[in-house]
Amino acid sequence: MLKGHQTWVFDSKPAIIGSAAVGGPFEAQSAIADDFDILYDDIWLGQDSFEKAEKKMLEQACETAIKKAGLKKEDVQFFMSGDLINQIISSSFTARTLGIPYLGIYGACSSSMEGLALAALMVDARFARNALAATSSHNAASEKQYRYPTEYGAQKPPYAQWTVTGAGAVLVSNEGEGPRVTAATIGRVVDMGISDPFNMGAAMAPAAVDTIMAHFKDLSIDATQYDLIATGDLGKVGHRIAADLLKKRGIGISKDKLTDCGILIYKEEQQVFAGGSGCACAAATTYGHLLNRMRRGELKKILVVATGALLSPMSYQQKESIPCIAHAVSIEM
Amino acid sequence: MLKGHQTWVFDSKPAIIGSAAVGGPFEAQSAIADDFDILYDDIWLGQDSFEKAEKKMLEQACETAIKKAGLKKEDVQFFMSGDLINQIISSSFTARTLGIPYLGIYGACSSSMEGLALAALMVDARFARNALAATSSHNAASEKQYRYPTEYGAQKPPYAQWTVTGAGAVLVSNEGEGPRVTAATIGRVVDMGISDPFNMGAAMAPAAVDTIMAHFKDLSIDATQYDLIATGDLGKVGHRIAADLLKKRGIGISKDKLTDCGILIYKEEQQVFAGGSGCACAAATTYGHLLNRMRRGELKKILVVATGALLSPMSYQQKESIPCIAHAVSIEM
Repeated sequence: MLKGHQTWVFDSKPAIIGSAAVGGPFEAQSAIADDFDILYDDIWLGQDSFEKAEKKMLEQACETAIKKAGLKKEDVQFFMSGDLINQIISSSFTARTLGIPYLGIYGACSSSMEGLALAALMVDARFARNALAATSSHNAASEKQYRYPTEYGAQKPPYAQWTVTGAGAVLVSNEGEGPRVTAATIGRVVDMGISDPFNMGAAMAPAAVDTIMAHFKDLSIDATQYDLIATGDLGKVGHRIAADLLKKRGIGISKDKLTDCGILIYKEEQQVFAGGSGCACAAATTYGHLLNRMRRGELKKILVVATGALLSPMSYQQKESIPCIAHAVSIEM
Repeated sequence: MLKGHQTWVFDSKPAIIGSAAVGGPFEAQSAIADDFDILYDDIWLGQDSFEKAEKKMLEQACETAIKKAGLKKEDVQFFMSGDLINQIISSSFTARTLGIPYLGIYGACSSSMEGLALAALMVDARFARNALAATSSHNAASEKQYRYPTEYGAQKPPYAQWTVTGAGAVLVSNEGEGPRVTAATIGRVVDMGISDPFNMGAAMAPAAVDTIMAHFKDLSIDATQYDLIATGDLGKVGHRIAADLLKKRGIGISKDKLTDCGILIYKEEQQVFAGGSGCACAAATTYGHLLNRMRRGELKKILVVATGALLSPMSYQQKESIPCIAHAVSIEM
């Protein structure tokens, strides 16, 4: 059901009956390492390209989520996936492996919540019994495509972020047990004129704020409804900006309640500049760490606000600023 | 409502209350020139890059569709769009211009029907009152990205296709008059091992056949239900393969009923090798030409099967074959 301008309320509260997170060697050292289902000690995963390694992680996340739900591929009607690699090939090749009817999506690092929102919509509206949503990113594949191959050793500014090597998948169903998807707010594109592709956190923060405000307004609620509000990958710089913007607009969210997956994922001593980023940042943190905390009873209701910087290397070269977006999904135990 | 394995039936029959097609100079000479709302005699559209020209066409198609429906941007809840340019920037920048909550999608040249299917789903399930779906492509921008810049004068094989320069948009609503969206079949990825990026029609034909067969099976119908079944952009080569495959599998569709947007769009004397292609091929042909024919009473019920080749230049360089997909949408007058 549409509520307000841009929010969906899922009356049947579709259940997340399976979820999985896969990570690389750097993620195996992370603060949430215990929440990954599969961890690799080789960023190549035995493949001959980083893109193929990413695809393998995405396939494994999907297959693990389906298996953990006690289902088979044939039981899943639709698969929504997107990733950062040109023409979302990690997702499309995974769809080939799975053989599940497939809707490719793209919202950069907001793809995780875009997929989960669509999966919940389909299940809630009885257009699917089981729907799978997933996304992935690979540090070396992203660096090569968006900035420089890692081997060049290019320097980075302190506000840069570290693309997570990993994948996350979630299976949403009209029956079964698990955390429930109760609402989703689809974001608008917000562009405050930032054009530095290293400064993604700052570029994306206003989009996160816009979506959080729309979510509260559409549902006539405030932050007290949630135990945790986690943005996707703003990192330390973007997180501070988002917190400041929310305060300026009269939205008070206590410091311990507003967090960011890009801050949660890595340990302080890991050298990740301003924090984690990439599609897998919000996906692995949510589908691994946060859902586990919900299942353990530590969190009852969370809002995940995945943020995406919708630039391309070419739009940057053509002197365009960075359009950003954020999609929010509410999950209840 | 889900029917069979992968088909959605829209019981409320959402109406297409506005549609628009925009084209470039080559499209202004095409067989369906009269069905375009706006035509340009300059492939640059006065912009300083082909990508910006594509974005301008997409913006205009969206704005025209909304205007023709007698609505304003504020009346539209959600915008679904995808295109061929890396990270679908034509779509994301158009979403910035429109300011409508946005779900980026990617299905290569199947994006048109992926967007229309999702728009109809949202409206039918009461998750949107009005939903906009659009897509675009630009010949020179696509050539540069996928093959060679046009200025190189690289030779092409006769089975190559000509990317349409244009955009198409469609506005789906729960009230108002117009052709009705009655069902959609979401395709699976089909990959028969073709790896020549010029030979897209042949690569995509099996995906079109797979989706058409699933559509018939899920709904327990056959081709007699339709006045016209139009694939997206198989061109002459792919169209012949699709017709042969259907016949082999016992699906008889008469020659005058099974057609292809890539064959319909250009005149015989236009030098387009095997036919048209690109996201705008199915979009402009359907949202301009075919809907106009429906409104004139020439066609009562059609099935549009938009086909997409989900490769990237990198997957080709890494010796991958071309995964393909097709999404089918049924439209009734």
